[in-house]
Amino acid sequence: MSKLVECVPNFSESRPEVVKEILQAIESVDGVRLLDHSSDDSHNRTVVTLVGEPVSAKTAVFRAVETAARVIDMEHHKGEHPRMGATDVVPFIPIKDITMDECVKLARELGQEIGEKLSIPVYLYEEAAVCPERKSLAKVRQGQYEGLKKTITLPERKPDFGPSKIHPTAGATAVGARPPLVAYNINLGTSDVGIAKAIAKSIRGSNGGYPSIKALGVLIEESNTAQVTINVCNYKEVSLARVFETVRREAQRYGVNVVGSEIVGLVPAEALFDVATFFLQLEGFERGQVLESRLHE
Amino acid sequence: MSKLVECVPNFSESRPEVVKEILQAIESVDGVRLLDHSSDDSHNRTVVTLVGEPVSAKTAVFRAVETAARVIDMEHHKGEHPRMGATDVVPFIPIKDITMDECVKLARELGQEIGEKLSIPVYLYEEAAVCPERKSLAKVRQGQYEGLKKTITLPERKPDFGPSKIHPTAGATAVGARPPLVAYNINLGTSDVGIAKAIAKSIRGSNGGYPSIKALGVLIEESNTAQVTINVCNYKEVSLARVFETVRREAQRYGVNVVGSEIVGLVPAEALFDVATFFLQLEGFERGQVLESRLHE
Repeated sequence: MSKLVECVPNFSESRPEVVKEILQAIESVDGVRLLDHSSDDSHNRTVVTLVGEPVSAKTAVFRAVETAARVIDMEHHKGEHPRMGATDVVPFIPIKDITMDECVKLARELGQEIGEKLSIPVYLYEEAAVCPERKSLAKVRQGQYEGLKKTITLPERKPDFGPSKIHPTAGATAVGARPPLVAYNINLGTSDVGIAKAIAKSIRGSNGGYPSIKALGVLIEESNTAQVTINVCNYKEVSLARVFETVRREAQRYGVNVVGSEIVGLVPAEALFDVATFFLQLEGFERGQVLESRLHE
Repeated sequence: MSKLVECVPNFSESRPEVVKEILQAIESVDGVRLLDHSSDDSHNRTVVTLVGEPVSAKTAVFRAVETAARVIDMEHHKGEHPRMGATDVVPFIPIKDITMDECVKLARELGQEIGEKLSIPVYLYEEAAVCPERKSLAKVRQGQYEGLKKTITLPERKPDFGPSKIHPTAGATAVGARPPLVAYNINLGTSDVGIAKAIAKSIRGSNGGYPSIKALGVLIEESNTAQVTINVCNYKEVSLARVFETVRREAQRYGVNVVGSEIVGLVPAEALFDVATFFLQLEGFERGQVLESRLHE
């Protein structure tokens, strides 16, 4: 019954020999498991997924941040993805027997350590933000590495931890906490991308839809299929079932059917149990009834 | 990535002090986990659920059978539930990284050991049966302990292992292999139990419905609700989603809605993932995408 936290740090580097050093720093800590890592050359960026007991996870990420500051030089970084630091962003995500509040505390502790021990300016974001303006990562990262070099001395850009001066090689880092995100795409029985765009608009928070949903309408060229591509940022708030049913109903209004959907990458088991619970109209179902949950107690 | 098998042995005894000795025999084996046990006094019977690595599970069950033969005397057993032995029935169930064929092999090995070392007659049933007539547990158990005492010498009742003579205290034991069973009830928006009975008849194998489905229509008195109470004996063959949708459609024919459903006891995670996959019309979904499955690899 140990607490488990997930962490998905993003590093501004894609070359395998550099990424290897960062991964080794993470794997040097007992009680941490590297679940996944993927590098994108055009973004010149690597996304790492690890899980572990909270203190171990924090230690592993600190070592990775320390390593990244040594092996990455932001002065010479080029890439399409917005970024402001060698370790660009560090979100903690509650997985098992741990609350969001505990993840926020963990993020703030790590932020303080990074600021004080490594002299890297740290901004707390999303659930860990100490002021509402810093909830949004996009706002925190505004101006990116190059812009922040100058603006960091402004009172409104003062880091939450560390010096009000950009780190010469490591830039600045955003540390936060958020619920698990599910990347979820719904394919429509049409090649009319306008319909996918209209549906995306109707469900996404930025246009008055569900606050925790981000969505775009795109055309999948290989199958000539319009797709609503979605980030479900809080499946406990808006389940995959509700997203699916809302999109299905909106598509009907155009005489279009949902032809399929896909989950990209990882999904917490609970998000799928919630879907089964909804569609089967299950009453009194408890997570402890799942055989595998008993095995790992 | 260790293989995991589940075993649900049934013992003809409900008194706690006797059950305790049997549970201790199981728990004396490393690599085995006791998940659940429940005793019913009117049945005078105890159902135990354990999981473990195959060899450990087999060893644990053998010790339990040995103990049951010592602490239970079938000559003095009374109970409502049909039974023929101290250890009445032992089904092995594949859980993780193990095939049904491996479970059949395990059942036959255990059967042989019980027959030879303990001189208890053993019948192989369900997937482990060596002839079609013994697939059905009800047929294997025909006549129960008292009847089998005489009929066991008939050629058609010759045990698969052990002597053609009932064990004086332990009776006879059925050992087999089967898929995980899900106990699943669907509640209807009516108090007319006739509708539940008609729907049960339409889906159960014994009346031309799904071969792996057993179902009855009952009235839940406390809520005055008609219920279709179902054993889903092979959720890979007929998913909970298909059972639900079939019952829902049959109920519509009477102008009745499904008002809810419930899973009784344990359910494999996969059975619920299959439900989510069906209703979300998921394409290309793999079990490895479930975060928790990565954690326990």
